[in-house]
This record gives sequence, structure tokens and C-alpha cells, in this order.
Amino acid sequence: MVQEKLVFVGLLASSKSLKDLSIFTGFLAVEHGKITRQGSIAEFEAMNNAGTFSDYNIIKLKNDQFLIPGFVDCHTHAPQFPNIGLGLDRALLEWLSKYTFPLEKRYSNLEFAAKVYDTVVQRLLTNGTTTACYFGSLHLEGTLELVKTAIKRNQRALIGKVSMNVKNDTGYYNNTEKEIEEVEKFIQEVFKYKNELVQPVVTPRFAVSCDKELLTALANISQKYQCRIQSHLSENRDEVDYVLKMNSDCKTYSGVYNKCQILNERCIMAHAIHLSDEEIRLLAHKGVSIAHCPASNTRLKSGLCPVRKYLDNNLTVGLGTDVSGGDNASIIDAMRRAMDVSTHLELNGNNDYSISWKEAFYLATMGGARALKLDDKIGNFDVGKEFDALLIDVYVNGSQIDEYESTESAAEHAVSLLQRFVYLGDDRNIVQVYVRGKKVKDLLN
Amino acid sequence: MVQEKLVFVGLLASSKSLKDLSIFTGFLAVEHGKITRQGSIAEFEAMNNAGTFSDYNIIKLKNDQFLIPGFVDCHTHAPQFPNIGLGLDRALLEWLSKYTFPLEKRYSNLEFAAKVYDTVVQRLLTNGTTTACYFGSLHLEGTLELVKTAIKRNQRALIGKVSMNVKNDTGYYNNTEKEIEEVEKFIQEVFKYKNELVQPVVTPRFAVSCDKELLTALANISQKYQCRIQSHLSENRDEVDYVLKMNSDCKTYSGVYNKCQILNERCIMAHAIHLSDEEIRLLAHKGVSIAHCPASNTRLKSGLCPVRKYLDNNLTVGLGTDVSGGDNASIIDAMRRAMDVSTHLELNGNNDYSISWKEAFYLATMGGARALKLDDKIGNFDVGKEFDALLIDVYVNGSQIDEYESTESAAEHAVSLLQRFVYLGDDRNIVQVYVRGKKVKDLLN
Ligand SMILES: [Zn+2]
Ligand SMILES: [Zn+2]
Repeated sequence: MVQEKLVFVGLLASSKSLKDLSIFTGFLAVEHGKITRQGSIAEFEAMNNAGTFSDYNIIKLKNDQFLIPGFVDCHTHAPQFPNIGLGLDRALLEWLSKYTFPLEKRYSNLEFAAKVYDTVVQRLLTNGTTTACYFGSLHLEGTLELVKTAIKRNQRALIGKVSMNVKNDTGYYNNTEKEIEEVEKFIQEVFKYKNELVQPVVTPRFAVSCDKELLTALANISQKYQCRIQSHLSENRDEVDYVLKMNSDCKTYSGVYNKCQILNERCIMAHAIHLSDEEIRLLAHKGVSIAHCPASNTRLKSGLCPVRKYLDNNLTVGLGTDVSGGDNASIIDAMRRAMDVSTHLELNGNNDYSISWKEAFYLATMGGARALKLDDKIGNFDVGKEFDALLIDVYVNGSQIDEYESTESAAEHAVSLLQRFVYLGDDRNIVQVYVRGKKVKDLLN
Repeated sequence: MVQEKLVFVGLLASSKSLKDLSIFTGFLAVEHGKITRQGSIAEFEAMNNAGTFSDYNIIKLKNDQFLIPGFVDCHTHAPQFPNIGLGLDRALLEWLSKYTFPLEKRYSNLEFAAKVYDTVVQRLLTNGTTTACYFGSLHLEGTLELVKTAIKRNQRALIGKVSMNVKNDTGYYNNTEKEIEEVEKFIQEVFKYKNELVQPVVTPRFAVSCDKELLTALANISQKYQCRIQSHLSENRDEVDYVLKMNSDCKTYSGVYNKCQILNERCIMAHAIHLSDEEIRLLAHKGVSIAHCPASNTRLKSGLCPVRKYLDNNLTVGLGTDVSGGDNASIIDAMRRAMDVSTHLELNGNNDYSISWKEAFYLATMGGARALKLDDKIGNFDVGKEFDALLIDVYVNGSQIDEYESTESAAEHAVSLLQRFVYLGDDRNIVQVYVRGKKVKDLLN
């Protein structure tokens, strides 16, 4: 497939690391979906005069427009989107049985699945989520509908068929043998698409829904196919107590997963709020990533996740929306709520716990890429990476952001633009979205 | 002025009290800007067949549309809107001198003031804020521009010229005599408009910017004209310490205001985070209202305000956006962040502190009306009140809210609609806005 060559000229912002945000005015060239060159405006002018970009589509950003890497959502539940904003007055385990399992059961209906998933993928792309790590439902065929949709809509996605073998009142589980068979089948089916953007993830729901036999078998499958593996860990104190009661041979929740060989560098754990220091060391040692989901953690009254402590202890952290435990599908919201939660922890006596807006921006992009082990491909604008990017305009019509005669320097103004977007922006300010060089949203034309 | 007669038929939601949210399908008639009748669909049909509404504009709400009272913003700073989303990495006193005072000083320029204020008032109306309690700037003429704009745009507003007489580096203050003169002049100028929606508020910035001589003089002016009086109280621990150091004759921050006769039933205090039990009793006894500004309190790291404790101690609480200490101009955001802060206080060991979405909705409407002592006129849909209302459509194009074949009953569905709006809605879902019966926003026609 021949892809357009693109060169963007204007303000570019991306994170090298947690503490190193690069904001500069220059150019960025994209060929075959990859970033091939970067440089200053003077370099662009010289190369352009020499004819280097004669067969490129040259996109000159307007004043106050800028380009950032696409957002990475490290944890969300595609089938739960119809419940977004509902039932959030319940605690985790009750919310699962009253709201979530009954809805997820409906994804045996493929027509329903296809319809919902198309809306979900489009909504995330509209909100600038170029990469999503999804939980599907228990259903093999239903979850393949999500795979097809992500491929069709050109979203980068890690997609898991959810595994559960512990009986529940809703009847929403499989027997162990069938479950193992279907997970392998799911992986093979996803591989058949040979799609460069979409990969399967082994997805045990959590230790409440899966016994150790199933967890161990799933760890083996993940090992066999070198797939990622994702689950939930230590979201809610009642959940932690229950898991420890059911697994009296283990001292910690993380220990249960560890015993089943789940914890490794391909592993992404959502929440991980109530970890002991021993668990933090274990997870860091094993290279496990954390998907921090502040909206969900607050709405379901799960707890305040000490992200700063995890970062200080060399855990890799990305952001997740965790719809529909989370009530907002946008990673912009997740950035703000990560700032809120960490500030509240700081106000509660934990010195220097607050996450700054620049750090939140890192978590939403490069941090997420690292958490999903996709940082060789995405996360920032390094030459050689694939071009997943958002064109931001903070002053478009309908925006919540205004400006009056500014007294800032040009450099200050560039920082202010990004800062305003992080604090105030919404999907209306994301005027174009690119995934692997292909434009998947365009409000400009 | 002849006003249209209106009758709305459909889903209506408004709060009687903190714990009593009324959601029902019926009709609501409006004449001369006031709610004159309310009843069931059957009653509407009978009256309509009898010709009662022959000269009314009949507005039949679509399925999934509903009507709620307009939002009340109990505390915001109109001149600070150009700084929204900037400088929030500073603490209160530094933020004031680095960002806020230099901007506010510019409102001596009336052209600048008129331009900014027009944007501010329109933005608030777009976000459903039918009533705002504003801090203006130090400038008499500049703040009168805000008065003119509110009148022109038909927003219900309490507007204060800010008073400051303590010297600061920016030179942004008046001498005491001039200040007292200008405040009286401002009140008289506002009264000259004889506008039913806009009233003056005496507005000492806070005890850091005003000495006791000025505070006492302003309390007298407020008494003389029976005006409301607004200020800031106990926002930040450094501020509290500073005020107590400057006023060694007083034991508490509230005590300083009390000594100056500021505290009474016409008084609205923003923030009030770090109150002693003695202060809570004093404020409750005096009938002082609290404007709770969760966004600002988090962004400026001021603290987590224990709203539940205040409500339990008979303090009247409304919500404020406190732009630009707050980073969001919408009361929808204030509702969510009031839920967040209170949930985090609960998670931190304060039992039953969390504010439910229904309580947040009360605070945003009826609570705000009570806090501003406007509950005889607005806040809910009682017959006899003036018609400030929002027509909500949670499924409009561009909305963040979807629905799929629902399995809810009609009554459950009605509750879900409002719940989804509180959790997920934005200005796009507010399709019409009415103030005193006059339509000031319309996305439908
Ligand atoms: Zn989850
Ligand atoms: Zn304020």
C-alpha cells in the first residue's frame, strides 16, 4: 500500500522522558507511516528549496496549532461503553454483578457487538486515542468483532478476549477447558489478519474470576505466543481480602499472579492501588506495567493510587480510562484526574506526590507506550518511530479556550498552548488524528 | 416588555432539597418569565383541550430530552478568564502576584474590559450558568462594563467591584478613602440600571488585601444598601497564617471578618477550607454561605474542603468555578470535582463524606440559589419562581454519550439520563438556555 509522504512544519511537542518535555518549532517528515526526519525551520527551508519535499504533502501549522503524539489508553473495556456514567454509586464487586456482567453477556450477539464496537473505536479516535489496550468480553466471536473494527478504522490496538472460569450468578463464565481452547483460537484468529496495528492480549479478568489453574494455563499461552497479558490487580480492599481468602497459600495479591507465572515484561496490570512495598518491589523486578485509571478509582471508591511512589520505584506507568468503571473515554480527562488524585495525596501529607501537567502529558503518551511495550514504535516523535499524532488547535470554534493580547514571549506562549490544552482542551481541539501516517480524523477539511 | 408564554411538556428534574430530587414527566407553564403552573401529562392534555394554552408556545420535549434549573456559579473572577489554564503550578499568594494582579490591572482599559467580559458572559451562558456571582477588578468603570454586558446578554448576575487597600508590588490597590467612595459609586451606578437580573455585591478581595478599617467601612456600605457582600476565606494554610499574623487581636480568620461586621446572612465566602469547629459554628450562626470551588482548591493545592461536614453543620453551600484559580468555567465540572474531592476525603477515612451525583446536582442549582439568597426567585421549578432553565439532550450530535437498546424501565431511564449528564455531559448537551423566560442559547433552531 502506497502511503502519502507528509511533512509538518510548526510547533511540535513530545516527551523524551518523564522530566524531559521537548517543545520546539521545526519540521517533521513522514514516509510510509514512519517519522524519517526532524529539524529546524531553517533546515526545512533549505531542504525545501533544494527540492527534497517536492513529492510531499506539506502541512504548515497555523500559529497556535501544534502537533503531539497520539494518546495511549492502557486499559479500557470496549463492551462496557453502553453503561458509561451509570451505576457508579456501587462498589466494585456489586457493580460488576449488577451492571457489568449482564451487559457484557449481550456480546454473544455479533450484530450488537459490531454496532457498539464501531461506536467505541470511533469515539476513542475522535478523542485522540490512537492506541488502546482493550478488554473485550468472554466471547470469542464477539471480541473478534472488535478486532475487525479496529482494523477497519485503523486504530492501533491490543485486544483481549476476557477469560473467566469462576462461577457467578449471571452465568457469565466458561469452563476451564473451553476457555483455554478459545483463548488460543482467538490469538490464532487475530494473527491471521497479519495486521501491523492490532495484536492479541491474553486477558484473565482478575483473580476473583479466574482460578490458579486457568491463570497458569493463560500464562503458558502468553509465553507460547509471546503475547502480552493483562489483568486487574489490587483495585479495591474488599477484592484484595477476597483474593487472599481464596488463595490462602499466597501472602499478597501480586503473589497469586506471580505463583501462576503471570508477572513478566509482557504484563500490564490495571489499578494496582493497594500494593505493599514487597509487591512494588516484585512488580518492578518482573518488569510489570501499571495502567493507572484515576477516574474509575474515584468513581468506584477504590482508592487513591500513589503513582509518584511507583514511578520513584521504577515501575512503568501509563494511563487508562477503564470505561465504564471510569466515566470518561478521553485520556485528556485521565491526565487531569491523575493530577487531581496525586495532588490530593500530596495535600494529605505525601510530600512531592503531585504529578505536574508535563508529567501527565508524558504518562498519556510516552508512558503509555512504554507500559504497553510499544515504545520502539510510538510514544514520541523520535526519528524511526511510526507516526501516531494529533494536530491540536486550542482556539477552534466551540473551544473552551480563549486568548487575548498576550504578553508572553514566543517560547512561553508555546508552553502555554500545550498547558491550556492539557487543562482545558476537549475533542473539539483535536482537529486531526493520524495513526501510522494515515489520517483518521479531520475537522479541518 | 411583553414576554412569550411558554409551556414545556416532557421530563422535568429539579431539587426540593439536598436529599429530595424530583424527576417526573409532566408540564411546566411560564408567563412573564415566571413559572405559573405545573402538572401531569393528563392535566396538560385536559387543559390544552380546553384551550388554556392556545396563546402559548408549546415546547414538547423529545424522548431523552429533559429540563433542569439553570446552574448557579457562586464564585468566579470575570477578569481572570484570559489566564484560564495558566500558572497553576504556583501556590495562591505567588500565583496572585505573578499571574493574577498583572492581568487584572489591565481592566482600566475599558475596551479590553468590554471585549473580555462579553466573551466571559457568553461562555458562562453557553455552559448553562444562568446566574453568576462575579468578582470584577479594582476598577469602577471597568467593572461597570461587566454590569453592562450581563444586562445586554440577559444573565442573572451579582457583580462586585473588587476592593483592595493593602500595598502590593504590582501597584494594584487603592487608598482607603478612594476605595470607599468608589464602592458606593459602583452600587449607585448599578442601581441606576433598575435591572431585575443584575445586582451589586460589596467585594473585599480578602483579609490579605484589605485592612480592618476598609473591611469595616465596606460592611457598613453593605448594611446601608442591603447589598450582598462576598470575599475569600481560609483558602490556603499560608494565607491563614499570614492573616493571623497581621491580625494578632483575632484568634481565627473568620474572627477577623466577624470583628469587621462582615459576617451575616448577605455574606458569601469562597473556599473556607481550613475552618476550625469554632469557625464553622460562627459562620452557621451568622448565616454565612460557602462557595465551594473544588477545581481551584485542587489546582492551587489549597486543600480538600469538607463539604459534608459543613452541610451537616447547617452551613449553606453552593458551587463556584473560581476561574482562573479554577481551570474550568463550567458548573458541570464543579459538580464532578465536588464528587471527586468528597470521595477522596471519604477514602481518607472520613465516613460518609462523599457527595452523590444527586447532591452535586442540588449544590449546582438549588444549593447555589440558597447560597446567593436567591432561592425565592430561582433554584428549582416551584410555581412562582422565575424560569431559569436548561434544556438538555444527552444524545445530540457530538455528544459524548451514547445509548444502545436499553433494558431499563421508564422511571429508571429518566434517572439515568440525568445521571449520565452529570457524569459525562458538556456544553454541547445544553441545547437551550433560558433566563427569566428569555431564551439566551439555542442549538435546536
Ligand atoms: Zn478494568
Ligand atoms: Zn476567588
